[in-house]
Amino acid sequence: MTIRALVWGENIHEQKNKVVAELYPEGMHETIAKSLREDDVISARTATLQQPEHGLTDSVLAETDVLLWWGHADHAAVEDEIVERVAKRVYEGMGLIILHSGHFSKIFKRLMGTPCALKWREAGERERLWVVNPGHPIAQGLGEYFELEYEEMYGEPFSVPEPLETVFVSWFQGGEVFRSGLTYRRGAGNIFYFRPGHETYPTYYDKTVGHVLRNAVKWAHNPIPAYTGAYEAPNVPVDKALEPIEERGPKLHADGEEGFK
Amino acid sequence: MTIRALVWGENIHEQKNKVVAELYPEGMHETIAKSLREDDVISARTATLQQPEHGLTDSVLAETDVLLWWGHADHAAVEDEIVERVAKRVYEGMGLIILHSGHFSKIFKRLMGTPCALKWREAGERERLWVVNPGHPIAQGLGEYFELEYEEMYGEPFSVPEPLETVFVSWFQGGEVFRSGLTYRRGAGNIFYFRPGHETYPTYYDKTVGHVLRNAVKWAHNPIPAYTGAYEAPNVPVDKALEPIEERGPKLHADGEEGFK
Amino acid sequence: MTIRALVWGENIHEQKNKVVAELYPEGMHETIAKSLREDDVISARTATLQQPEHGLTDSVLAETDVLLWWGHADHAAVEDEIVERVAKRVYEGMGLIILHSGHFSKIFKRLMGTPCALKWREAGERERLWVVNPGHPIAQGLGEYFELEYEEMYGEPFSVPEPLETVFVSWFQGGEVFRSGLTYRRGAGNIFYFRPGHETYPTYYDKTVGHVLRNAVKWAHNPIPAYTGAYEAPNVPVDKALEPIEERGPKLHADGEEGFK
Amino acid sequence: MTIRALVWGENIHEQKNKVVAELYPEGMHETIAKSLREDDVISARTATLQQPEHGLTDSVLAETDVLLWWGHADHAAVEDEIVERVAKRVYEGMGLIILHSGHFSKIFKRLMGTPCALKWREAGERERLWVVNPGHPIAQGLGEYFELEYEEMYGEPFSVPEPLETVFVSWFQGGEVFRSGLTYRRGAGNIFYFRPGHETYPTYYDKTVGHVLRNAVKWAHNPIPAYTGAYEAPNVPVDKALEPIEERGPKLHADGEEGFK
Repeated sequence: MTIRALVWGENIHEQKNKVVAELYPEGMHETIAKSLREDDVISARTATLQQPEHGLTDSVLAETDVLLWWGHADHAAVEDEIVERVAKRVYEGMGLIILHSGHFSKIFKRLMGTPCALKWREAGERERLWVVNPGHPIAQGLGEYFELEYEEMYGEPFSVPEPLETVFVSWFQGGEVFRSGLTYRRGAGNIFYFRPGHETYPTYYDKTVGHVLRNAVKWAHNPIPAYTGAYEAPNVPVDKALEPIEERGPKLHADGEEGFK
Repeated sequence: MTIRALVWGENIHEQKNKVVAELYPEGMHETIAKSLREDDVISARTATLQQPEHGLTDSVLAETDVLLWWGHADHAAVEDEIVERVAKRVYEGMGLIILHSGHFSKIFKRLMGTPCALKWREAGERERLWVVNPGHPIAQGLGEYFELEYEEMYGEPFSVPEPLETVFVSWFQGGEVFRSGLTYRRGAGNIFYFRPGHETYPTYYDKTVGHVLRNAVKWAHNPIPAYTGAYEAPNVPVDKALEPIEERGPKLHADGEEGFK
Repeated sequence: MTIRALVWGENIHEQKNKVVAELYPEGMHETIAKSLREDDVISARTATLQQPEHGLTDSVLAETDVLLWWGHADHAAVEDEIVERVAKRVYEGMGLIILHSGHFSKIFKRLMGTPCALKWREAGERERLWVVNPGHPIAQGLGEYFELEYEEMYGEPFSVPEPLETVFVSWFQGGEVFRSGLTYRRGAGNIFYFRPGHETYPTYYDKTVGHVLRNAVKWAHNPIPAYTGAYEAPNVPVDKALEPIEERGPKLHADGEEGFK
Repeated sequence: MTIRALVWGENIHEQKNKVVAELYPEGMHETIAKSLREDDVISARTATLQQPEHGLTDSVLAETDVLLWWGHADHAAVEDEIVERVAKRVYEGMGLIILHSGHFSKIFKRLMGTPCALKWREAGERERLWVVNPGHPIAQGLGEYFELEYEEMYGEPFSVPEPLETVFVSWFQGGEVFRSGLTYRRGAGNIFYFRPGHETYPTYYDKTVGHVLRNAVKWAHNPIPAYTGAYEAPNVPVDKALEPIEERGPKLHADGEEGFK
């Protein structure tokens, strides 16, 4: 069995910003994809904002088990229709890993139902990520903590819903903390938010970050066939009730009528 | 202290459907508001779809502590702009109680991030709501269960996120179950989904239902001043860092620049 | 990779009660173990109350990935020391699946921190288990529900902590509901409570029940090496602090002293 | 309405350690009680380890709405019988606030079901508690963070179950983080763990700490009559079933027989 990952990159700063272009000459998405491929069980393709349909056609998504999302400079450029398409695949069971500044992506805000805001500082400061949930599959093989010497600071409060589980909490040199690894389920889809990854730093070349991402892909993978029940609202006719009942009382709907949506 | 509730009613079937019009001659919203007023601590006004801005102007929402929402026939008629306005107030701390068919309202789907679908049958069957969380404030003063002799069936799976807490689980005569009382927090706002309330049955005249709604209003009420931090993403300048740090490494943002959103 | 399951059976009613002895001539534990072995990835052994150390020696537990627990008639006969030993292994990452009347076992109450009480009726009534979390690994391959024509009723409220996730909710013919599949994590150990399995009915011969148990074993399996951090409370000396700090203020502990426990 | 708080103090270091005796000449429990009394709605008494039944008689507990617990040097000296008595009152709805080194108290470990271990360092370092859940009642009236200039460090992983909600996360000068404010419910009882409070520092004289404790008492208070359902397991006779059923199949229990516990 192979887990089919797709790394989506906004691919703007790699084209426009000299620092980022030199650091990630192939694009951040390709660097991330390469680190995923270090695990034989994972295959990794990439897609970018600039491609037709942002590279997220129905057929591409149908062949994607886990989608990783990096965006920052132009979340608004992602078409709403594509966002809905991705959300639907998440409900069906596609895993979704939101990276760093993707906290403000349309798809993450869409699935969380909250603004997903936070405070920030770009000062190349030290981040230390503590494992607060050592038994979680995403933390497998890690020590008690790992450090990134240069990172952007993200500070609490992070306006997301209470997660299923908190996996990492970050310490920052400048005095802030952040819940850096959070899990959610939406429909049949597993979602992981992972904080690090500012584009001017070599975060995605870091061995431990790669290890976390590979763990996260394996955790997020839901091997079930596409589950469509999350967005269907079937009427159950009285004569198909599992226990015999008789229809009673006044009715709004004619027999066989579809419900309101 | 008075908790200022606002009961929002779609007010369509009361105008167009003879059964509903006879059952709720003043509108379902007014019947619900009356049952809230049985508690002296609660004041209750109403608003409807047909009013300008659906009765949900900035000033009305600013004076609302807890909003109750009943809609069914035409969720699509609610303006997206108003939905965003309500969502913002929820993040700021306004409580929100979603009633019955409001599961498909734009505001509930918006805040849950999921389709909020379920199966259904309109057969006037018996619903028995079991209290599974007897210590919860919303269950205060209830027995182990309560019954509604005539209700519409809603069946699992209900495609909502795992709740903070499950308060009620329903048994239906025809063989289904449903998680009938679920709590969430979004930003500073408390959200409660409460299942019963089909418009062709006298559910909102039921004493126990009224008791639950009054409990829910008191639970959902967050007395803090409007909290705006959920949708702000402030930059923290290096010289304002709580611990002394020096800026290092390459930068993307110029000093004092706002972040991308 | 093989997942090493161990099925623990109290093995009392199989010896003393004619009905149970005829239904499960090899013991319920052996019937359960057989159904686990239908999946090649699982190996399954058994242990019983009557064995030395209840069959749960250090070496047996060290070689166990997932423990399944069925008990009913004499929970008190399980030695407290063995209960602590099992709890420790759960913290270290051993999975634990508690079956039916095991809700009152010492080990389950120990790990939940609550009485784990419920109401019950032995009347051979119909139970219908609804999948409320269709994307969960434990529900993989199931339909929307499954039925057991003859089961004991367990009714809410079930006094357990709010679970990580609710997987199944049961409908009972006599009018009750029950949260029949609940997940927890304690330390590095995954815990699943699964309701069905009264000893006078052929529940553990049921194909779907076997399917759920195999799913649950695979879900509960945590492949990490035994994690001991859950019960260690190390002092971090000042000179080993990750950031340079100077000791300040009055002290209670002498240098290198162990903390109070 | 008055909320009846009871502050339990171990009262050992105040007697034996000169630093603590001078800092808290009336005992830490009395200092804590005084800060609770700053809110008119709260009445606060104290009890100590050295009193008969540790000051936790049935009648005292029956008149306690919220119990605060501070202990450190001799958790083992608390009688198991008293621990069970307190646990029972929590299930009945008494609130429980565990302070600092109380993480290793018998009652907290009993109710969590886990070892509740952590790492620590006594170096008088700076702790900064960030509010990660600004809408939570316990955070009401606080700013984005508050600081304690001298505190003992507690570091993750903290081996407790995933909480209902995380309210505070601490940053420590020496490089660690800690989930410093966690909520749980056990039976009808609300539980809050609050990290600060090392006995050699003036933490309980801090205005903000007092504010948090008063908020926590009000949040933890459950005004329902003592709820006994958490530890009862009633049989529901067939002829009392809510829906008519006929007894079928083989039986284990004679009519009217109590179940096994």
